[in-house]
Amino acid sequence: MADEIHEECGVIGVFNGNKALDLAVLGLHALQHRGQESAGVAVSDGRAIHSYRSLGLVATMARKTKRFMELKGHICIGHTRYSTTGTSNLINSQPILIDYKRGQLAVAHNGNLINADTLRSDMEEQGSIFQSTNDSEVFLHLIARSKKPSLVEMIAESLKKVKGAFSLLFLSENELFAARDPHGVRPLCLGVLDKKTAVVASETCALDIMGARYVRDIEPSELVCISSKGIQSFRFAPPGKKAHCIFEYIYFSRPDSRIFNHSVDRLRRAFGHELAREHPAKADIVISVPDSSNTAALGYAHASGIPFEIGLIRNHYVGRTFISPAQGDREAKVKLKFNPVRGVLKNRRIVLVEDSIVRGTTLRQLVSLIRNAGAKEIHIRVSSPPIKFPCYYGMDFPSFDELIANNKTIEETRQFLGVDSLGHLSINGLRKCMQEEPNNYCYACFSGAYPLGALKTSKNIFENRKKQRT
Amino acid sequence: MADEIHEECGVIGVFNGNKALDLAVLGLHALQHRGQESAGVAVSDGRAIHSYRSLGLVATMARKTKRFMELKGHICIGHTRYSTTGTSNLINSQPILIDYKRGQLAVAHNGNLINADTLRSDMEEQGSIFQSTNDSEVFLHLIARSKKPSLVEMIAESLKKVKGAFSLLFLSENELFAARDPHGVRPLCLGVLDKKTAVVASETCALDIMGARYVRDIEPSELVCISSKGIQSFRFAPPGKKAHCIFEYIYFSRPDSRIFNHSVDRLRRAFGHELAREHPAKADIVISVPDSSNTAALGYAHASGIPFEIGLIRNHYVGRTFISPAQGDREAKVKLKFNPVRGVLKNRRIVLVEDSIVRGTTLRQLVSLIRNAGAKEIHIRVSSPPIKFPCYYGMDFPSFDELIANNKTIEETRQFLGVDSLGHLSINGLRKCMQEEPNNYCYACFSGAYPLGALKTSKNIFENRKKQRT
Amino acid sequence: MADEIHEECGVIGVFNGNKALDLAVLGLHALQHRGQESAGVAVSDGRAIHSYRSLGLVATMARKTKRFMELKGHICIGHTRYSTTGTSNLINSQPILIDYKRGQLAVAHNGNLINADTLRSDMEEQGSIFQSTNDSEVFLHLIARSKKPSLVEMIAESLKKVKGAFSLLFLSENELFAARDPHGVRPLCLGVLDKKTAVVASETCALDIMGARYVRDIEPSELVCISSKGIQSFRFAPPGKKAHCIFEYIYFSRPDSRIFNHSVDRLRRAFGHELAREHPAKADIVISVPDSSNTAALGYAHASGIPFEIGLIRNHYVGRTFISPAQGDREAKVKLKFNPVRGVLKNRRIVLVEDSIVRGTTLRQLVSLIRNAGAKEIHIRVSSPPIKFPCYYGMDFPSFDELIANNKTIEETRQFLGVDSLGHLSINGLRKCMQEEPNNYCYACFSGAYPLGALKTSKNIFENRKKQRT
Amino acid sequence: MADEIHEECGVIGVFNGNKALDLAVLGLHALQHRGQESAGVAVSDGRAIHSYRSLGLVATMARKTKRFMELKGHICIGHTRYSTTGTSNLINSQPILIDYKRGQLAVAHNGNLINADTLRSDMEEQGSIFQSTNDSEVFLHLIARSKKPSLVEMIAESLKKVKGAFSLLFLSENELFAARDPHGVRPLCLGVLDKKTAVVASETCALDIMGARYVRDIEPSELVCISSKGIQSFRFAPPGKKAHCIFEYIYFSRPDSRIFNHSVDRLRRAFGHELAREHPAKADIVISVPDSSNTAALGYAHASGIPFEIGLIRNHYVGRTFISPAQGDREAKVKLKFNPVRGVLKNRRIVLVEDSIVRGTTLRQLVSLIRNAGAKEIHIRVSSPPIKFPCYYGMDFPSFDELIANNKTIEETRQFLGVDSLGHLSINGLRKCMQEEPNNYCYACFSGAYPLGALKTSKNIFENRKKQRT
Repeated sequence: MADEIHEECGVIGVFNGNKALDLAVLGLHALQHRGQESAGVAVSDGRAIHSYRSLGLVATMARKTKRFMELKGHICIGHTRYSTTGTSNLINSQPILIDYKRGQLAVAHNGNLINADTLRSDMEEQGSIFQSTNDSEVFLHLIARSKKPSLVEMIAESLKKVKGAFSLLFLSENELFAARDPHGVRPLCLGVLDKKTAVVASETCALDIMGARYVRDIEPSELVCISSKGIQSFRFAPPGKKAHCIFEYIYFSRPDSRIFNHSVDRLRRAFGHELAREHPAKADIVISVPDSSNTAALGYAHASGIPFEIGLIRNHYVGRTFISPAQGDREAKVKLKFNPVRGVLKNRRIVLVEDSIVRGTTLRQLVSLIRNAGAKEIHIRVSSPPIKFPCYYGMDFPSFDELIANNKTIEETRQFLGVDSLGHLSINGLRKCMQEEPNNYCYACFSGAYPLGALKTSKNIFENRKKQRT
Repeated sequence: MADEIHEECGVIGVFNGNKALDLAVLGLHALQHRGQESAGVAVSDGRAIHSYRSLGLVATMARKTKRFMELKGHICIGHTRYSTTGTSNLINSQPILIDYKRGQLAVAHNGNLINADTLRSDMEEQGSIFQSTNDSEVFLHLIARSKKPSLVEMIAESLKKVKGAFSLLFLSENELFAARDPHGVRPLCLGVLDKKTAVVASETCALDIMGARYVRDIEPSELVCISSKGIQSFRFAPPGKKAHCIFEYIYFSRPDSRIFNHSVDRLRRAFGHELAREHPAKADIVISVPDSSNTAALGYAHASGIPFEIGLIRNHYVGRTFISPAQGDREAKVKLKFNPVRGVLKNRRIVLVEDSIVRGTTLRQLVSLIRNAGAKEIHIRVSSPPIKFPCYYGMDFPSFDELIANNKTIEETRQFLGVDSLGHLSINGLRKCMQEEPNNYCYACFSGAYPLGALKTSKNIFENRKKQRT
Repeated sequence: MADEIHEECGVIGVFNGNKALDLAVLGLHALQHRGQESAGVAVSDGRAIHSYRSLGLVATMARKTKRFMELKGHICIGHTRYSTTGTSNLINSQPILIDYKRGQLAVAHNGNLINADTLRSDMEEQGSIFQSTNDSEVFLHLIARSKKPSLVEMIAESLKKVKGAFSLLFLSENELFAARDPHGVRPLCLGVLDKKTAVVASETCALDIMGARYVRDIEPSELVCISSKGIQSFRFAPPGKKAHCIFEYIYFSRPDSRIFNHSVDRLRRAFGHELAREHPAKADIVISVPDSSNTAALGYAHASGIPFEIGLIRNHYVGRTFISPAQGDREAKVKLKFNPVRGVLKNRRIVLVEDSIVRGTTLRQLVSLIRNAGAKEIHIRVSSPPIKFPCYYGMDFPSFDELIANNKTIEETRQFLGVDSLGHLSINGLRKCMQEEPNNYCYACFSGAYPLGALKTSKNIFENRKKQRT
Repeated sequence: MADEIHEECGVIGVFNGNKALDLAVLGLHALQHRGQESAGVAVSDGRAIHSYRSLGLVATMARKTKRFMELKGHICIGHTRYSTTGTSNLINSQPILIDYKRGQLAVAHNGNLINADTLRSDMEEQGSIFQSTNDSEVFLHLIARSKKPSLVEMIAESLKKVKGAFSLLFLSENELFAARDPHGVRPLCLGVLDKKTAVVASETCALDIMGARYVRDIEPSELVCISSKGIQSFRFAPPGKKAHCIFEYIYFSRPDSRIFNHSVDRLRRAFGHELAREHPAKADIVISVPDSSNTAALGYAHASGIPFEIGLIRNHYVGRTFISPAQGDREAKVKLKFNPVRGVLKNRRIVLVEDSIVRGTTLRQLVSLIRNAGAKEIHIRVSSPPIKFPCYYGMDFPSFDELIANNKTIEETRQFLGVDSLGHLSINGLRKCMQEEPNNYCYACFSGAYPLGALKTSKNIFENRKKQRT
């Protein structure tokens, strides 16, 4: 299930807001789905930048602690992060705040670089030290080393050197910068709240909650500088071939967001339509694996004419419950999370819509739950193609070997899941939904065709990156 | 919205389970929706009973603390509670464990007595002391004072004296007792896990998660004693007129539960059907206030032929976020909780299905949110009649004066909410859905007709009950 | 060492103070040494009593939590408690607050009853229930059952029925009561702060910190009622033979307190003098086991003419450090607590003054530490006789069988400790220090002669009392 | 009082210990007095280094958290730190662990550099970034930039560039390094536990608790490398003029430690002797401000022949109690901390020995407390000269302007404190106690003569350093 896939970040920036920090916290709440392991903000009052980071949810960070309450300023950036390592880790949380030759600088980053390790090794050779395993620290080193006369040029020069996916915010004492990689892999949008308040966010849902008006996306290769002089736009590189992450539509982004110029909800629905066309089913009802597959399931229902039903209810209290192996049967964990509605499922032929399959183990237990609730037939329809390749641009899959699509054929997977039929939306189906612009997207996790190239790394460096710090 | 109404409790009991405590914790997780303020268990190993209670969720209680890990035994009762007072309060949490003349006894209670204060005053006159404001303490005093020769008779004698709603579990060193008031106001069901393990729970969803098989409901007026001799059934009083709480169907119980012999999901759907018949609407889509109104909305959609859509997405991370008045506009709080999907709502005529209206203030903000997302028309359909009267049997409404139905006509409420039309399911409509047995239910919060009588209390006593303790 | 002996409580009461709660918290801080497991207060504003209790130190309780900050009133009682069971336990903390026929009543108790179990069993037979294993609950039951017309008479009647040691405070909506058992086992004193503020406390050190003036001790058999009518004194029983706990002087009370009409410091010093007379030593220096034996060691030094030195420094940061068996040698724990000053100890013949010996195991490790620091000879001098008997009046020793004096002769103990000589102050020596009033004290833990009689209990009841609750 | 002065750090290192981490934690406990704001460790298993840091005491860090329990390895360094900024700050805690060109490196530092800001600015100009305000980060940058072929040479080269006080530990994957500045300002000693385990610590008391044998001090200008090849010694610079911090003897170090080749206890006692000679008093008793002045007070007592008494008892439970201004009088805070023993003080002429005076405000309240306890005369004797100058080598005084000696003459101070006489040990007296080597010490905080030079800093840089981070 897609909740085994993790985006690494959401970012937010507020310039000149009367209540910049309050607004940023609101915005971070709206971006909570992009990372729940740590949250942080950096705020400038025009003279100095202060930062505050904590493990856990945005609500945990924004508690009325003495230190949090002391933060003040009119420019703020914020970050919410999913830790890719097992153990969470404050030193890897963001924004990172540094002193460098021109004063202070903070960075918040969403995405993943493919030449970070090379750049890092080079800079280490030249005497640099690294305190985190964040790509973001690489940006800061590059900027600090730049000999350009202005900060905007220093940033631009640095961005030219990195390869990979980045939607970035920088905060200096008096300026807010926003930049997006030449391929536009991750979303980033600009909005205004009132005459003097500009905001930048990973998704438009953050603009909505702040009461800001969407202006436009930050363009691929664009570097925007927001200061008292207004909003200035620069190009740090020629625009590359567009490669927006299709998974933002499939699972990551909130359905009420508009990213890459499309409504997430509308596309997720279109995937359901197309899925119904590609893989029809003789069934009594369509149900979804809540909540992320709801929209695709609705799409499937509408296109197929099979009624949509709520057959599984998600238990939102559960959190990180400790369940000992002894507690009930093997399925206790999935039972804690999903409640099958027997009255809906009993004696029915069911289409179960899921947004993606990763390992398949949880889905298998869910199928068994639905079976036990009396379902007559179960037909799984997945609104994305089989995931077969790692993402080097900011998604965190379970270990490559654990991906079921690398170990089993569709038929073997069907048997493993114990369902009557299994159908995935095809890559072509997906492309069809994108209408006139199918080539503007990255489908690498399905196809293995990496538009920005694969990760440049070496075994040794990878070893180094596994170290723990606090 | 119904989330301003609180049930006071969920109860669970496990007899002779190899992993009685683990099972009870699983069951409590499934009953978490019935109370999130405190959770507790009492466990007997046949010689002594130990108890553990804590404020917060079941997951908080079941952390691997030294004291929790030390609990052991083969009989267990558990409780989850919504505190009716503003500040939560450990001394009012359950189970309550006492010493009395026959050893130890623990109690877990769902419901509300109407003669608790009278009984309490009488016993106080005779020299009793009370340490909590729980009705449950009244049961324990009555039992401890009974002169009957056996515990089952002592309990039976005591239950005869109380009036009101109670689904009760008692735990002695070697026995588990379950009882239900003569009117069967609150649900309580019996299940078996294997040959030697019997379980009792407020709702069947708890049976499902434990892997137990539903056997039957505990009957009104029934007292069941589960011991090494098996399951014995007694009647402590002649059965009264049935008065099952209709609100269990409307909002409280989980849709995947079967209570009062009906599937909650099926009835909630029927309410939607009937609502569509009573209050049709010319609209493009039907949406619900998630998650509690989803099923009724589906029912409305099916009956009306208007397509069901997901127009609001509920943010489950939010928890008890602190939002200062300064943070964004007045609607920030409802914005944090609900995300309107603009693509779904824009330029649409919308039927918004809600399960109930209490104060109307949150709903009003939600309407404004939907308006701002571009909805052309909003037609609110409520799957329950206007709430006008207090519940004396275990529901906790906001202050009587705050109920919007006591202050405004339907038309005034419509204007207050700022919607194009407003329709409530009628009491008759509700009764119709109950088919051959409409008189088996309590509709007092809508009608003011109290089948068990109103609360017997006095101003002074009420004052006393407001005191805080830890 | 005496820190293996625990007093069960300290109590404080403030009447009519402008800042009654603040004063009580200050006073509780001064009584922290009498109990560190839980702390609590009950406050009345004249109409209702609210209480707040928490596990841990007074500082933990008095944190600025929402609930604590909400407490208000002009009459307050407070309590600090050492839990006698391994696991701490909120339900056994005090003050206990109840509802009874006349309204509310709270109690805070220092001491131990010898007929609590009998009274408890009797009341249970008559239908009472008990929620804690506190003797204090017994008082409340007795009062609630009294048929006397006024509260002061109800309390007086109840106190007549209990046997044992009690220094008690009661709080009703408008009155503060203080009472002391007929033998005056535990201390309790009265002070005034200004014209309208009266205070009661276990020790005068609490008066000092509140800025109150000591007026007099609450007398044995006295019941004092402090109300808007002033301070009224009653006798609830004829005064018994005085039996002040001699251990209050030896170890429990703070040296800066004045209890039982004597300065603790002066007597502790006298014990040292007498110890030097009874057990002289040829030594170079006198050192103490800090901090509780400092005063006695000074007394020994002065009387013997041997210079007092600081040879051990106590590490106060240590708290409840977890030390795995693997961490260093067996003596790590005592090493963490005491730092031997090599320069002082090396090549010296040392008199080590300790206030009491319980099990002897820690002292043995301390001796080894001193040896390793180069001491030439070690002569232990103990400012109390060997502890051989349990205390039924409020002290909590380790298990009876663990007392070294019950297992070994003085000579065997000396060998076990590995010291050159060992001398205990004799009972007669102790009595001599009390000058004209040696018979006013209880020496039962040394002599086995129990002035109030021994604990009346039965095996079964004792079993019951071991149960855990929260 | 000296508790207003803070040392910034204690350091510990263990090489090849079977239980390196356990030993380091024990050692850190013994160094807890050198810093209570944060604690941390870095451990190498020969392949990778992992670190763990937390705010608060060593006991807080060493709790059995999942992450702490996972640390393993045979080489470990540890650090305990007093935060100089008001708000504590995890990013400034130590050890700092970095990646650099040769792998990983961790550092733990005690002391203060005087050219850190210059070095920092230079490196920032060259493109370096700084994430903390620690001097320690400067060392890491210097090492990472070194072009020398071996790590030991890289470290040596770097140490040559820094000026100021440093007792340093470095940890690489396979080596433990210890270094001390050419003036030997802060202590650092070497010990062995068994044939294969070497340890390094700020004070010998840490050796004692680990069961290690003291070998020798790390010499000024010495760089020691402990590896599987044994212990190798290098000189990174010619030895400078010795400038051991005299305040280590006066207040910082534990009396049971031996530093700079002398027992702390013995010298603290000598200060008391000399103080008695310089400032005799006609008094009945000598008391100390516990616990730090105990030894000096004993020295005064012995030299003067006036008996030593315990007139103040320190309350160790108090911690960071919140006392509202409303709670009792202005003196409540000092009252919570110190209990005057009336029986000792009443009608006596008292010599009160204190180790140092900083602001004088707390001492003034303490004097008032002693007066109220009935003292007839109070003569303050201070075992150090008046503090008039800031320390640039690792001590943290309150703001320069707040030092009473900069605002008042001795006579004015006497009046301010409200005592009958006031005498400070003179610088000459202090020097006399150091016997043949008075010039080996730094007295700059008294004399203003800075043996290593004053801090090189600029206003701007100082501004930068005040920023907060987490």
